[in-house]
Amino acid sequence: MTLTIESFEVFDIRFPTSRGLAGSDAMNPDPDYSAAYVVLRSSRPDLDGHGFTFTIGKGNDICVAAIGAIAPMLKGRSLADICSDMGAFWRSLAGDSQLRWLGPEKGVVHLALAAVVNAVWDLWAKHEGKPVWRLIADLSPDQLVRLIDFRHITDALDPSEARDIVEAAQSRRATLAPALEQDGYPAYTTSAGWLGYPDDKIRRLCAEAVRDGWPALKIKVGRDLQDDVRRCRIVREAIGERLLMIDANQVWEVPEAIDHVLALAAFDPYWIEEPVSPDDILGHATVRRAVAPIRVATGEHAHNRVMFKQLLQAEAVDVVQFDCCRLGGVNEALAVFLLAAKFRKPVCQHAGGVGLCEVGQHLAFVDALSISGALEGRMLEHAGHLHEHFRDPIRIKGGRYLAPEAPGFSTQLKADSLRDHIFPEGRVWRDDHRPATVTLGARADSGRRSSAAQL
Amino acid sequence: MTLTIESFEVFDIRFPTSRGLAGSDAMNPDPDYSAAYVVLRSSRPDLDGHGFTFTIGKGNDICVAAIGAIAPMLKGRSLADICSDMGAFWRSLAGDSQLRWLGPEKGVVHLALAAVVNAVWDLWAKHEGKPVWRLIADLSPDQLVRLIDFRHITDALDPSEARDIVEAAQSRRATLAPALEQDGYPAYTTSAGWLGYPDDKIRRLCAEAVRDGWPALKIKVGRDLQDDVRRCRIVREAIGERLLMIDANQVWEVPEAIDHVLALAAFDPYWIEEPVSPDDILGHATVRRAVAPIRVATGEHAHNRVMFKQLLQAEAVDVVQFDCCRLGGVNEALAVFLLAAKFRKPVCQHAGGVGLCEVGQHLAFVDALSISGALEGRMLEHAGHLHEHFRDPIRIKGGRYLAPEAPGFSTQLKADSLRDHIFPEGRVWRDDHRPATVTLGARADSGRRSSAAQL
Repeated sequence: MTLTIESFEVFDIRFPTSRGLAGSDAMNPDPDYSAAYVVLRSSRPDLDGHGFTFTIGKGNDICVAAIGAIAPMLKGRSLADICSDMGAFWRSLAGDSQLRWLGPEKGVVHLALAAVVNAVWDLWAKHEGKPVWRLIADLSPDQLVRLIDFRHITDALDPSEARDIVEAAQSRRATLAPALEQDGYPAYTTSAGWLGYPDDKIRRLCAEAVRDGWPALKIKVGRDLQDDVRRCRIVREAIGERLLMIDANQVWEVPEAIDHVLALAAFDPYWIEEPVSPDDILGHATVRRAVAPIRVATGEHAHNRVMFKQLLQAEAVDVVQFDCCRLGGVNEALAVFLLAAKFRKPVCQHAGGVGLCEVGQHLAFVDALSISGALEGRMLEHAGHLHEHFRDPIRIKGGRYLAPEAPGFSTQLKADSLRDHIFPEGRVWRDDHRPATVTLGARADSGRRSSAAQL
Repeated sequence: MTLTIESFEVFDIRFPTSRGLAGSDAMNPDPDYSAAYVVLRSSRPDLDGHGFTFTIGKGNDICVAAIGAIAPMLKGRSLADICSDMGAFWRSLAGDSQLRWLGPEKGVVHLALAAVVNAVWDLWAKHEGKPVWRLIADLSPDQLVRLIDFRHITDALDPSEARDIVEAAQSRRATLAPALEQDGYPAYTTSAGWLGYPDDKIRRLCAEAVRDGWPALKIKVGRDLQDDVRRCRIVREAIGERLLMIDANQVWEVPEAIDHVLALAAFDPYWIEEPVSPDDILGHATVRRAVAPIRVATGEHAHNRVMFKQLLQAEAVDVVQFDCCRLGGVNEALAVFLLAAKFRKPVCQHAGGVGLCEVGQHLAFVDALSISGALEGRMLEHAGHLHEHFRDPIRIKGGRYLAPEAPGFSTQLKADSLRDHIFPEGRVWRDDHRPATVTLGARADSGRRSSAAQL
């Protein structure tokens, strides 16, 4: 292949979700789900790579600026060159000596890296005519391991161990793949449990979730204990024996987390998610020891493979919940899947937001087919928002993600949706006196095209 | 006081230091020392607050954008209101629910927070007519503790313990303060040991450092073992019994760090700095156990109080090296000083760069007078660059920092320097064909004033 990356465009895309309180939790009362969205233009006019990172509103423009600092490093690069040693390519971006000072490998520059790296994956997969999950599943163990930068994790996992893990998973694939590709990947839903929802709405959404076949539900906790007790009771009554997960979104101190979780133990939570600061590896370990057998889950805000390495080394987590748009894209996500497999912990990725379900589903299939080789204890998060804006949206059936079929990474927004949600010029922001029910998912023929940066 | 913050200006300031290889280390071969610099304009035309965060070039504009997202939260606020409960003020900025997603409390948004918070401190101290260190030293234990947001560290340190620490330090102050204020605060220099320097220059700079009274020198290591052996030998010969510290700037894997440090043990290094990833708390602990009695120092890239809490809890460090422009400014720096005091470890702040010595000296005096109450094992880093651009530059005598005397935080650039180094319109960037020796510290009467953002 002689395809080269010629230029890029980056867009500040925001959805006015705060108008409806979807996404509200104890730490984030009023998010406007947003994406710093990049399009890599290739030497083939019909072939672009789309990628994004997710934010919750203010500061999305800062991520746009950071993408504008990273993406120029791709200009003129051939796709074949990039893909022949993608671990080295990834390190060259993550390790840029001046940008690295702003992290390293964390915060805005790492969020931006995810957008750029995932856009390369979309381009590569479209060029191969395969969905990303199948592109990776078709790689040999050596090829898959070469995607990864092992810097700063070799004390826990080296390339040779990683190769053995992939080989073992591929040898188990024949028994797993047919059912997976036919029935889909297990999932759970968070659509019912946002803090901003009134009790009646929670009851109704729980009933709908049960009817739709969801085997597990998650609700937000942490604002007030009595409020949490009431909401847990409502959900437990509504869902019967199904799994109930609770998510505190980092609001507690370590001792407070232990007390609060034990006070909710009567409702048999399957896991407690983000009980304390996302940086607090030792704090998570303390909470885990105290609340067992309730599982501790975390990772949505854990910023890189070094943090996950330690969460696993310190026995601080039962469930690994990385976010593929907060880690530095597919390549680092694969490193964390491999670390989790080495330490025999399941990955249940964070999803929701804008397009995180679309991205996460590909990686969940990769984990099952090429890394953990297992489905037990695995579930991909699902939230019902904003899928209608994607060209190749997720498909859910009986509480499972069906395998994506379109070539690429399912990251591409519909042209109308992209245009309408550009901030602040897009239609939904110019006319923001209208109620959320009209603007979410609506279309218009008007609206200017705009880009925040362009080569 | 009825002073209010009316508006702000933010500047992208860069110095072309890569032309001279000052600042080169194993991870950062060619930095252009930079500052994302904010000026808070108050209701008194003669009273501004100046603050900055330090970067090494590319991406300084991203920090400028992030300051532009945080600083508007100060508009119209009264200084008295802010300072009456500064812990709550700090949390309101660090915890902004939408910007928090981009960290939380790490990376670009946290660097930007440091600039804004430190500008408030400059304004407050100027308004009080005191240097920042004296403003804080004059606070009661209760007042000092109220400056701090204890979120996510109360399992290691609560406000009541913090109050006891301050009270104990203040009770020891009478024996410490006179000598400190007369002779200055202990320091060490990094000016001799940048990786890019040839051996002859290292020899000459070491001899100068000895002549100038420096009791301790630090050099960069980690690019090549044989090179490090040669350079350590040169320095050890030149400095005799004085302390030699070595700094790897994160380039090693955990087992590699142990091997490399043990191979340099013959040169009796006082500490090894940043042997592994700055996020790797457990890795630092492993290295520390293996290389003792050589001390492990780290913290220049540790992003918040939660990381320092764990470095101390895990017994991963002997020397705490936070950077007051990477932590969220003075308030979080005080939290880390208190944590270090609780765990009985010395703080030797990271400095150098642009203005980090100017900022760090104030906090070093605060530690001695109000927190640790000790000088043993404490040294503030010193590098000889760029001080001439500050209105109230550091004063070094016999290898010690003399107490700053001017009101404020010593953060204010000279007007000429500010104007000349604005990127990319400033004089030194417009005329960047000229050699570094001419541009560093030079003046000009031309040059336009410009600001990247303005309320």
